Amino acid sequence: MAFLKEIKTNDQHIHKLAGIVGSARSILYKKEDLLAYDCDGFTIHKHLPRAVVFPKNTEEVAAVVKYCHENDLPFLARGAGTGLSGGAIPLNNEIIISMVKMKRLLRVDLENRRAVVEPGFVNLKLTNSISERGYYYAPDPSSQYCCTIGGNVAENAGGAHCLKYGVTTNHILGLEVVLPNGEIIEIGKDGVADEPGYDLLGLLTGSEGTLGIVTKITVRILKNPEGKQTVLAYFDNVADGSQAVSDIISSGIVPAALEMMDKTAIEGVEAAAFPVGHPKDIEAVLLIEVDGITAGIDEQIEQILTVCRSRNVREVKVARDEAERGRWWANRKTGFGAMGAISPDYLVQDGVIPRSKLPEVLARINQISEESGLRIANIFHAGDGNLHPLVLFDARVPGETEKALEAGSLCLKVCADVGGTITGEHGVGIEKREEMRFVFTEEEIAAQTDVREVFNPKNLLNAGKLFPSPGRCVEIKKEMKASAAL
Amino acid sequence: MAFLKEIKTNDQHIHKLAGIVGSARSILYKKEDLLAYDCDGFTIHKHLPRAVVFPKNTEEVAAVVKYCHENDLPFLARGAGTGLSGGAIPLNNEIIISMVKMKRLLRVDLENRRAVVEPGFVNLKLTNSISERGYYYAPDPSSQYCCTIGGNVAENAGGAHCLKYGVTTNHILGLEVVLPNGEIIEIGKDGVADEPGYDLLGLLTGSEGTLGIVTKITVRILKNPEGKQTVLAYFDNVADGSQAVSDIISSGIVPAALEMMDKTAIEGVEAAAFPVGHPKDIEAVLLIEVDGITAGIDEQIEQILTVCRSRNVREVKVARDEAERGRWWANRKTGFGAMGAISPDYLVQDGVIPRSKLPEVLARINQISEESGLRIANIFHAGDGNLHPLVLFDARVPGETEKALEAGSLCLKVCADVGGTITGEHGVGIEKREEMRFVFTEEEIAAQTDVREVFNPKNLLNAGKLFPSPGRCVEIKKEMKASAAL
Repeated sequence: MAFLKEIKTNDQHIHKLAGIVGSARSILYKKEDLLAYDCDGFTIHKHLPRAVVFPKNTEEVAAVVKYCHENDLPFLARGAGTGLSGGAIPLNNEIIISMVKMKRLLRVDLENRRAVVEPGFVNLKLTNSISERGYYYAPDPSSQYCCTIGGNVAENAGGAHCLKYGVTTNHILGLEVVLPNGEIIEIGKDGVADEPGYDLLGLLTGSEGTLGIVTKITVRILKNPEGKQTVLAYFDNVADGSQAVSDIISSGIVPAALEMMDKTAIEGVEAAAFPVGHPKDIEAVLLIEVDGITAGIDEQIEQILTVCRSRNVREVKVARDEAERGRWWANRKTGFGAMGAISPDYLVQDGVIPRSKLPEVLARINQISEESGLRIANIFHAGDGNLHPLVLFDARVPGETEKALEAGSLCLKVCADVGGTITGEHGVGIEKREEMRFVFTEEEIAAQTDVREVFNPKNLLNAGKLFPSPGRCVEIKKEMKASAAL
Repeated sequence: MAFLKEIKTNDQHIHKLAGIVGSARSILYKKEDLLAYDCDGFTIHKHLPRAVVFPKNTEEVAAVVKYCHENDLPFLARGAGTGLSGGAIPLNNEIIISMVKMKRLLRVDLENRRAVVEPGFVNLKLTNSISERGYYYAPDPSSQYCCTIGGNVAENAGGAHCLKYGVTTNHILGLEVVLPNGEIIEIGKDGVADEPGYDLLGLLTGSEGTLGIVTKITVRILKNPEGKQTVLAYFDNVADGSQAVSDIISSGIVPAALEMMDKTAIEGVEAAAFPVGHPKDIEAVLLIEVDGITAGIDEQIEQILTVCRSRNVREVKVARDEAERGRWWANRKTGFGAMGAISPDYLVQDGVIPRSKLPEVLARINQISEESGLRIANIFHAGDGNLHPLVLFDARVPGETEKALEAGSLCLKVCADVGGTITGEHGVGIEKREEMRFVFTEEEIAAQTDVREVFNPKNLLNAGKLFPSPGRCVEIKKEMKASAAL
């Protein structure tokens, strides 16, 4: 392995790992290269990894993991790094195992409605690969144009269309997993129905990279709906908009998507790359999509329009064509980033509430905004009660980062207090570890960390994520504040 | 506690347990009473429990469990005892904790589409309690008129309508669980969306009573579909029928149910309590149901009729009214029991295959039937590839029970070999422990038993179920043969 001479470091582990992945281009270890890996979509907290390796196949992943396991080196897996809760941040100077070279679409089996992909395969590419044959992959996080399906599995990612079709876990049929000791197991096999025994498939999905590293994924693919129609509805107050959401669901319709943005969010998306001309003085906009058999859609759209009118809608319109529909969705899906157009920094939160509590919770978030002196925009999956308060702040102003973190945490407390929970689709990561206590008792957290212990007994894989530890939380908050103040 | 004098046994544990459940009528310990609890729906294997207790609430369950835990007494939970794989059979002279007194409907929350029930609440009663208000509970095992929702959770029960709506695990939003040490935890809380952390809800659901005892269940309820139509289609050969199934699914329709019965099954159901006049010489009948918005249904039914005709259907008819639809379903749902009309005994199996393998697998099952000299009827959820071969035999004929067990096992091997699995909805229990090796490696089984170890370290709760243990399997098969020969 002549290339090993190119490795310029005294760290012998780097040489060994380079030997495993087989080329000097498959490992990064210089500080300037590592800087790109010090955080993910959760940018407040930054830590450098020890190295980043790029395995090409399951065997290389297993060999890297085995090496880390035997040498007590902390490690974690990373996809596109678009996660929003810090799940891929190397808190403990980890060896990052990047999955981006494992990005093949291995198999499409239309007859049995499934596809097999490597973890680094980009979410949207799957739909693009099968759409001409009339199929698609349902989970559609807003980052779907670049996020990987492996990362989606780790975080159990959601998306606008998960109201009708379910989140990632509802579409995963099988996994190949490298366990933290380097053993390879298959769960769900060829993706036929529920397997006997414990539901390890469900357990691994959404375990935020703490139980194993996924190296192959069998997903469910769906037939394109025959038809699709999309509606924008503008309301002069948030209560009417929320009530319309509730009424639509209680009418028995399950829209494919039912999204809401409030006035501050509208200001942001209209100032950013994909404005669509939302009225500036409106308090709430709903983006509603219905799909299915053509014959049924018109009837559902009629019902939706009737509901909106009964809730004092100011204006409501149906997308004229696919191009207009596409513009509306681009406007919504780039909504988080759009906040950059009206604020130097923003922190996105991710709480879930019973739909019936929508007006009450939005009022309380408004209060938190007033008390903190920070604007909070709301862009969210209204249909399933999954809120995304976006706390706008300026990290250059001393104290504002801490205020934003606190306001975000208070929003989650409100969600927990009305019987909701602290994350719908972004995960806990490092961001919401302490907030786990809003929804779990010590015994309940222990039941979970005991499970981690089984799979990950040395806790070398993605340590310090997902769970609070007594005393440790306070310390972490301090670290975060210190890091934020830099 | 004066009633303790009524307890006539020297077994001091029985006295203590009676004290916990608070009355002499809440415990059974005499052999004649225990005989009713020596098996469940899997009747080949019989074992007497040490006692049966009937707690009235979570605290009593926890106290009984704690007592067993501290005194090293094996124990297990039992619902209606309709399970088909022996999950509730007391292999180790267990204390059975019967959940039948915990049978209240605790709460219905229509706005957020959920209901809270005790585990002993009967499945069908939930739908009956909310149907007038326009709602229903989707999972519908054929035993739904008497099986309990607690049992459904343990086995992750399916049913005819799970093709469109998913099995039990897709409808469980929260659980209260007594762990094997007597601790009480809540998972999923008020049933709002996915919780952070590991998916313990999924892990517990379908864990066949080996990880904990469920004492409260929050389930998803659905709005009644606006309309519903049901079709019977008769085919002169099984290949045409199977191909029609495949064609219907690939056309993009997801029927609410898509059931199939073969000639032997038809002979049975027509000889039993709910005949509907299926032609006697037909090779396959499909029972197809479509539901949803009225406007879309007619179109789907038209498509289904077209598919059936293109596959040489002999006759096809749409149910004229709810009464006819009800008769067709009674005919199908009592199908297993109906085999009693044409055979002294039967063994029902439960394999899953990729839909595309249907014709091949049915042909191989036919071969197994010929080779064993036993008739095998097939009644199954064709839409999701969930087969139920019913091996007909006569336990009074020496050797036939063993032959039936072997034929059943061979059917599962066929399913596993084509990329399927060994159970769709009945569970592994004691029946299919050895067959777990058809689909799992030793490492994969170990990953699962390690999980059991976390929750159930003393293995007092429902021991000997779900997993093979080296050497033990052979022993169990011998036991079963001995017990069958009695």
